[in-house]
Amino acid sequence: MNCRNWLLLGGLLPFLQITPHADEGMWLLNNPPRRLLQEKYQFNLTDPWLDHVMKSCVRFNSGGSGSFVSDDGLVISNHHVGADALQKVSTREHDYLRQGFHARTTQEEIRCVDLELNVLQSIEDVTARVNASVPPELSGEQALLKRRQVIEQIQAESLKQTGLRSDVVTLYQGGAYHLYRFKRYTDIRIVFAPEQQIAFYGGDPDNFEFPRYDLDICIFRVYENGQPVKPAHFLRWSKSGAVENELTFVAGHPGRTERLLTTPELEYLRDVSSPYALGRLKRIETLLLSWSARNPENARRAKKDLFGAQNSRKALDGRHAGLVDPILMDRKLGKEQAFKGKLRGKPEFEAALTAFETIAKAQQQITPLMPRYPLLETGHAFAGDCFHFARVLLRSMEERTKPNGDRLEEFADSKKTSLELDLFSERPIFEDYEILRLTDSLTFAAEQLGYVDPTIQAILAGKSPRARATELVKNTSVRDSKFRRELYLGGPENLHKVKDPMVELARVVDAEARVLRKKFDALAETKKQAHAAISSARFALEGTDSYPDATFTLRLAFGPVAGYVDEGNPIPAFTTFAGLFERGKLMNYRTPFEIPQSWMKRKSRLNPATPFNFVSTADIIGGNSGSPVINRNGEFVGIIFDGNIQSLILDIEYNDEQARAVSVHSSAILEALTRVYDADEIARELVSGHRQ
Amino acid sequence: MNCRNWLLLGGLLPFLQITPHADEGMWLLNNPPRRLLQEKYQFNLTDPWLDHVMKSCVRFNSGGSGSFVSDDGLVISNHHVGADALQKVSTREHDYLRQGFHARTTQEEIRCVDLELNVLQSIEDVTARVNASVPPELSGEQALLKRRQVIEQIQAESLKQTGLRSDVVTLYQGGAYHLYRFKRYTDIRIVFAPEQQIAFYGGDPDNFEFPRYDLDICIFRVYENGQPVKPAHFLRWSKSGAVENELTFVAGHPGRTERLLTTPELEYLRDVSSPYALGRLKRIETLLLSWSARNPENARRAKKDLFGAQNSRKALDGRHAGLVDPILMDRKLGKEQAFKGKLRGKPEFEAALTAFETIAKAQQQITPLMPRYPLLETGHAFAGDCFHFARVLLRSMEERTKPNGDRLEEFADSKKTSLELDLFSERPIFEDYEILRLTDSLTFAAEQLGYVDPTIQAILAGKSPRARATELVKNTSVRDSKFRRELYLGGPENLHKVKDPMVELARVVDAEARVLRKKFDALAETKKQAHAAISSARFALEGTDSYPDATFTLRLAFGPVAGYVDEGNPIPAFTTFAGLFERGKLMNYRTPFEIPQSWMKRKSRLNPATPFNFVSTADIIGGNSGSPVINRNGEFVGIIFDGNIQSLILDIEYNDEQARAVSVHSSAILEALTRVYDADEIARELVSGHRQ
Repeated sequence: MNCRNWLLLGGLLPFLQITPHADEGMWLLNNPPRRLLQEKYQFNLTDPWLDHVMKSCVRFNSGGSGSFVSDDGLVISNHHVGADALQKVSTREHDYLRQGFHARTTQEEIRCVDLELNVLQSIEDVTARVNASVPPELSGEQALLKRRQVIEQIQAESLKQTGLRSDVVTLYQGGAYHLYRFKRYTDIRIVFAPEQQIAFYGGDPDNFEFPRYDLDICIFRVYENGQPVKPAHFLRWSKSGAVENELTFVAGHPGRTERLLTTPELEYLRDVSSPYALGRLKRIETLLLSWSARNPENARRAKKDLFGAQNSRKALDGRHAGLVDPILMDRKLGKEQAFKGKLRGKPEFEAALTAFETIAKAQQQITPLMPRYPLLETGHAFAGDCFHFARVLLRSMEERTKPNGDRLEEFADSKKTSLELDLFSERPIFEDYEILRLTDSLTFAAEQLGYVDPTIQAILAGKSPRARATELVKNTSVRDSKFRRELYLGGPENLHKVKDPMVELARVVDAEARVLRKKFDALAETKKQAHAAISSARFALEGTDSYPDATFTLRLAFGPVAGYVDEGNPIPAFTTFAGLFERGKLMNYRTPFEIPQSWMKRKSRLNPATPFNFVSTADIIGGNSGSPVINRNGEFVGIIFDGNIQSLILDIEYNDEQARAVSVHSSAILEALTRVYDADEIARELVSGHRQ
Repeated sequence: MNCRNWLLLGGLLPFLQITPHADEGMWLLNNPPRRLLQEKYQFNLTDPWLDHVMKSCVRFNSGGSGSFVSDDGLVISNHHVGADALQKVSTREHDYLRQGFHARTTQEEIRCVDLELNVLQSIEDVTARVNASVPPELSGEQALLKRRQVIEQIQAESLKQTGLRSDVVTLYQGGAYHLYRFKRYTDIRIVFAPEQQIAFYGGDPDNFEFPRYDLDICIFRVYENGQPVKPAHFLRWSKSGAVENELTFVAGHPGRTERLLTTPELEYLRDVSSPYALGRLKRIETLLLSWSARNPENARRAKKDLFGAQNSRKALDGRHAGLVDPILMDRKLGKEQAFKGKLRGKPEFEAALTAFETIAKAQQQITPLMPRYPLLETGHAFAGDCFHFARVLLRSMEERTKPNGDRLEEFADSKKTSLELDLFSERPIFEDYEILRLTDSLTFAAEQLGYVDPTIQAILAGKSPRARATELVKNTSVRDSKFRRELYLGGPENLHKVKDPMVELARVVDAEARVLRKKFDALAETKKQAHAAISSARFALEGTDSYPDATFTLRLAFGPVAGYVDEGNPIPAFTTFAGLFERGKLMNYRTPFEIPQSWMKRKSRLNPATPFNFVSTADIIGGNSGSPVINRNGEFVGIIFDGNIQSLILDIEYNDEQARAVSVHSSAILEALTRVYDADEIARELVSGHRQ
């Protein structure tokens, strides 16, 4: 599962409070399901337990989750979460993504290029203060500005006061605003990664499937001031690992769900946003597949992006299968109508009823912004790093001169360090690969908007997409991180002096892109206000024992380790190492079912009965990748890396009949580290909690 | 190159006479470039030479070309042309497509399931008779009916008179109508096919690339009355094979070109038809790739369709790169304007000038038929064999009651045997594979037309695409060839009694599909009449020394064997067996660059200097696959199987700077047959012209 699916889904992010059943829920850590756990599982969720889990968990800025697992700063996440970092430190000679990596000493650890980890320290409810600054009579555009200003102010104050990264998070789509404070870490070093072939065993065909046999892990060490950090909390390694039917918890960062979108919003997803996104992803997938196949170096360069495209495509296809299922859609419509029924005739809920209409109207106004908005503003027309950097440079000049609260979000003071980490990144940029992607995305944009479109004409400047992409990439200097740094630090005058074709291109589309952004954001804000009204009515009618839609903030999910039944066949909860070797044999070890040499050689040393992967009913979604699976004692028993194909509709509606979260078992990790990789020192650190 | 690309390109087929230069031209055999060949190559093109070539050439109903190469009915074509036949006789146990096939005796030859070969016997100009029946004042719809009637009449008369398959072919988009008479063969047996891995070495990544190393051949034997046929003509095997710089000819069936489309027609291709077709192909490609990767049997079932999708995608992407090149488009616009300039102010050419406007207007009316027309009438909404058969059954009942000339073309008497060959075919139909494709195509249709579209609602019948596809495929009887045969022969009453869900579905969409077809065909006819007017003016102004756009009828192309220069690097005209082994090593023999065991084992026996593939400037396009390459003496020196990537724009404009036809060298075929496959008896038959 791609930790970053939720970034790719297009559309808006309205959340509604929902009434949970079964093991449903991506719960806020400051409003956990205490009663539910007590009643259903006789588990007493204490504050120290919660605090321990919260401070052991880690969020990856590249998308994804992880956790501290030693007192000496060891962090474990998924291989596919670490892939971005591995790719960026790899070269033609040392392809760590493919071949794996193992630092036997701290000296051998490799520092990541632009990875940032965040550890949540506290949550504060700031709803009252935010709402006080935004009078209800304001238009979407005005409300957006006001809200952004007060949020920026809260964040800036908090940053100054505590020195911690401070993000005001919108929950229940405007029903609540919470201030999340994080410790930031940027000196992250790679300790261990297996070969991608075993981390992602079975590749795209087995992705989102179960049974699975993946060692999808990557181990980092976090440094501060040149020394391994001593985290306030870390998860101790469970002796047994996950056991069938036992209650487990998942603490991580689900990226995005849309479970209580209103009907027009779901129809927009079904009819407009998903078809656009899927068409684009399938296009990128065929492009990268055929380019990768030309030679091994191409494959290396495109590997991470190809995985991302395939993974997102499969996730979206799965969600789309839910959207096009009239039974599911009718059920959702039925619930919405029942809720509206409760609102009718009650003056105190009139605003909530009107809000449904407001959302429908706003949604209608969003549709005509497609596909211009994602093409020109999100940047789908301009694939690759070069344009991205050019635009950041261009916009940063303009935005920096504005008061903090008036800027585009990503240029606010609170985002400055993260922005610079990205902009100054020394990640490799390959000319041929940039040209390939830019050619294709320009062609796509021209198809979508039409060749005669004046913006397309201005972008192409009388050339074919290939000729234009070639001249842009070959002649831009933004590929050079030193150039970017100097330009950025030199300020606006400096930028005006530079004649860079990619910066020029960013300039050419900037006015229109900003207009689109403004319209889109204002409509999103209008919907946000309307959702807030619906949310209040729901709180009043149904109580506050609920959770908001996912927002890539820390959540607690739970559920037992349990198999399921598929087309009449029982699917056991666990796979084993023996199963891996059987699968390989069945598939004649053909790509992507080769078993790495390291495993074939050590096969006889391995205990074939070792549990490898397992499934549980915990409520997860993209972004949860790398989340620790935790037992009642707060110990590490496994690590989430995927959901099965039936789980993909969880985006819209929870269901525990077949939908399952898929994890690597903690015992498989230890067994592989010691018996396959001779990484006994890491295994010892995990078991003891201290570097040996 | 897919022999069937041209079937997939959507849009219409207007042809215009064009003025050739360099080695340009897909010449009619009754209007060959005698003067050009005499002047440029001092070659005297005689009638006997032409007749010999014409009667040696073979057309495959599965799309593609071939030629007789022995007096005992041996026919050689490409492996990818034979793939359809190989796939249909393969089973889970005997995968001839993948593993290859070699009949050591005639008894071991395998009869193809539904392959039909046609050999052209004569060409007769019937333009005067066709035009006499279609008064110029008729509307598009009326003209279409009249023209279809007279054409059907001519065909029926000829069939009765000669017993030969008789097709009236539209040339110069209505500038001329020629009656082509073919000998039909339907007892075709497979003699030899190499492993697909060497036939299509390098797979999709190397497809449309050069240098290449493909043994893309498949050998059949044609039977009549249970005996190998003695063809009137066959091509003798050249001793030397193709030699650098020598003049060669290609006689085959280019499927379709659109070189002199008018500007609005090209813009329609660029803006409407290509983006639709490419989006659809990339969707199919990702679907089949991920399904194939799940297990080897899936891969076997989807192999041919996957190849088709990838191949068409690459071909269309290549053509599209031409359409989005403003330099090429401006050049074409410039030529059109210059030609219009010659027409202006001359009363005799007023009709031709008006015709340009007529085409523009008709094209405008075609655009709103997209994508309903291809989805509902071409059947893109209903992928798989089941719906296809259901519709043929349904429509045949209705069409058979009409006079021959009033029927939809494919139900005319002249098409009856071919239609029945297809309908009664015993090719395997796999339930899971049908459901997979139908689910996806129904989803695609719903995305394209919108879920609320009443036709989509009627098609889905309140179910999700997956649920609907599953019930349709599981409950239809049309999968059974016996059922189809009985229903078809039983007549309309019989059909009304049967309650088959797939036939019902065909019925549900039939009214609307027929309306779309009628509109589309009438507009096509209107354009045809207009193109005819333009064509007449061009004949008058520029003479008749020209060739029409490709129509999957026999054409003669020519040009020397010659390398080219790409990005400053000279690309030699020939590759060798040694090059194959070097390429394999460079690519670490990873899929799709494995070299089959048969070749690895026999490597030392092979002469490494044997020419393997070569390029020439001959003007070819999809449909030419399998065309013999012939020397001045009328001997077989190679076989066309591809064009390089630069040749893909030949669809729109000929260019001999880099565009090249790619062939297997005749020496490579002999060497492989004897040294790798121990097929000495076939080699001897090829060299001697007689079965030994």
